[in-house]
Amino acid sequence: MTLREWPASGQPELPMDIVPLLKTYSEKIEELLQEEIPPQSVDFLSEWVWYQFSSGGKRLRPALCLLTCEQLGGEVELAYPFALASEMLHNLLLIHDDIEDGDEQRRDRPTLWVKEGQANAINVGDYLCPRAYALILRSKLPPETVLKLVDIFTLTFQKTVEGQALDINLRGSESFNLEQYYRIVQHKTAYYLTFNIVGGALIAGGISDEGIEKMWDLGRCLGPAFQIRDDIIDLTEGKGRGGEIGCDIKEGKPSVFYAYCLEQLSSDDPRRERLIEIIRKDRTETDSQLIQEVIDIFREVGAFEFADQECQKLIEQAEGILDDLPLSSEGQELFRAIGRFMIDRTK
Amino acid sequence: MTLREWPASGQPELPMDIVPLLKTYSEKIEELLQEEIPPQSVDFLSEWVWYQFSSGGKRLRPALCLLTCEQLGGEVELAYPFALASEMLHNLLLIHDDIEDGDEQRRDRPTLWVKEGQANAINVGDYLCPRAYALILRSKLPPETVLKLVDIFTLTFQKTVEGQALDINLRGSESFNLEQYYRIVQHKTAYYLTFNIVGGALIAGGISDEGIEKMWDLGRCLGPAFQIRDDIIDLTEGKGRGGEIGCDIKEGKPSVFYAYCLEQLSSDDPRRERLIEIIRKDRTETDSQLIQEVIDIFREVGAFEFADQECQKLIEQAEGILDDLPLSSEGQELFRAIGRFMIDRTK
Repeated sequence: MTLREWPASGQPELPMDIVPLLKTYSEKIEELLQEEIPPQSVDFLSEWVWYQFSSGGKRLRPALCLLTCEQLGGEVELAYPFALASEMLHNLLLIHDDIEDGDEQRRDRPTLWVKEGQANAINVGDYLCPRAYALILRSKLPPETVLKLVDIFTLTFQKTVEGQALDINLRGSESFNLEQYYRIVQHKTAYYLTFNIVGGALIAGGISDEGIEKMWDLGRCLGPAFQIRDDIIDLTEGKGRGGEIGCDIKEGKPSVFYAYCLEQLSSDDPRRERLIEIIRKDRTETDSQLIQEVIDIFREVGAFEFADQECQKLIEQAEGILDDLPLSSEGQELFRAIGRFMIDRTK
Repeated sequence: MTLREWPASGQPELPMDIVPLLKTYSEKIEELLQEEIPPQSVDFLSEWVWYQFSSGGKRLRPALCLLTCEQLGGEVELAYPFALASEMLHNLLLIHDDIEDGDEQRRDRPTLWVKEGQANAINVGDYLCPRAYALILRSKLPPETVLKLVDIFTLTFQKTVEGQALDINLRGSESFNLEQYYRIVQHKTAYYLTFNIVGGALIAGGISDEGIEKMWDLGRCLGPAFQIRDDIIDLTEGKGRGGEIGCDIKEGKPSVFYAYCLEQLSSDDPRRERLIEIIRKDRTETDSQLIQEVIDIFREVGAFEFADQECQKLIEQAEGILDDLPLSSEGQELFRAIGRFMIDRTK
């Protein structure tokens, strides 16, 4: 199975390559983060914030925020606070998620809670929240715009936590289904993947409420598409951790495959019971043979084809929304490039 | 030793009794909280929010916010969102603190993390944060005022977390001193105890920035006074848990007594080493005999007198600020009554 390309076949290849631009923005973000929370101070917080920041990836969220603002004609400096705030929210959620999921490693290093204890990790995560809000409040923008930014930040935070609640509590559920899968994914990714871009657009200004709403709609397609692609990658290429396949199965995560198979397999099919049994096992007990057994069930039931089709459908929907975005052709091209970038990148 | 009364002796007894008023406001808050987060829905969040809310005390924080707003001539309805938000922040911090401190009981019931696991407890705590911000954003007030409310809420959240970082990491420190004690207490109580009142005043309107700053100053005196009183109560009457004395000693909390004794006892005094040894013990090993030993050291060194003097000094400072508050005589009387209420109440 090959992963679907973006843009849809038949459309011309896009000329705009945002990757080098994102790199430049990311470097700027790095510099600003260092100014905002100097890593050397002794407050039992900032040093550990930086331990987390330095395992936290490529600053893509804030870079996409700056890119959007500038490409839509806004002053990029005005977007710095919101961009930094988006990176702080990202890291706060990573810190707390690592504790919640019992993850002991992130990018080949101990996670913060393993290194400094749960008490400090919870507290450092909490700390990033008011720091992020304080940044947004310092934006040099009209009060109404600042309030809108606080609003989308808050909405995203809330939706992500709501999604996490479902994610934690539906693991290994024997009645898990696609409706629940989409509910989790809509909550956990649709906003989280888009709010930085919506923020950039709001700061650039001049976009109608309807246009902003369409950007969220785009997230509602690209978020699930991204997540399904992530589910597929976990079973085909592995998600980064030395190419290990099936981490989601090990962790009992409610994936699109699991939801589809539970819906397809009748209650008297022995594969159903076996699937639930393996998914529910503690991660330490799920060896590569059990993972292969689950992948075989997924394949037999047709879950791979289903996932691919779902992803395809969502991307087509996204393309429809892109055509409809009330932006100049340059603006449309930007969003097309962002969409391609999001779908193409792995975690 | 008797605890110092408020107001200072020599001043006339205050006629205003805010306790019955607070009770009425608290009942209203209870009703509004039920509307805001209906306890029955199945989202793996709200039921547990209510488990926490129902062990969360008397809604004094939001009641004080409403009281302040109305008594200063504001429309009380306008203060509902901020008042509710203050209760949410309070509970989010309690949920996370219980995990961080390893507290298994709150008001004779298992704490949320014991009941539903750490993952859910962290997530439920996180959930209350955007819910609180979303409430503030819904206030029917001019954008500038809403932004001020978001700002003081954020500042309070940040300071409290900064204080918690020091509190967690200075436990059992052998170089703990009074400067550090005041730093913790200023961060953890000065804002947390006052922001609801400042919010109520901002919503009522008509108070200068200088007046608002003086209210914070009041918190900077009353917060530490409250905390020192809390430290004293822990060693004299016990803090609620069946009158058990010395919980803070058991938990190794950095109290005013501990700070004072470490400053007073020379490095070759055997009591110094013994004190540190007991404070550092795991709570399960600290029996009532060890607690008595620590209390005896505190008494011998004069820590009780010192704590009482410090509290007295802070209350006198607060009285000076009260006289200076740019309010009508009714407004001044209100703040005097709130001050008395804060100092008088135990946790």
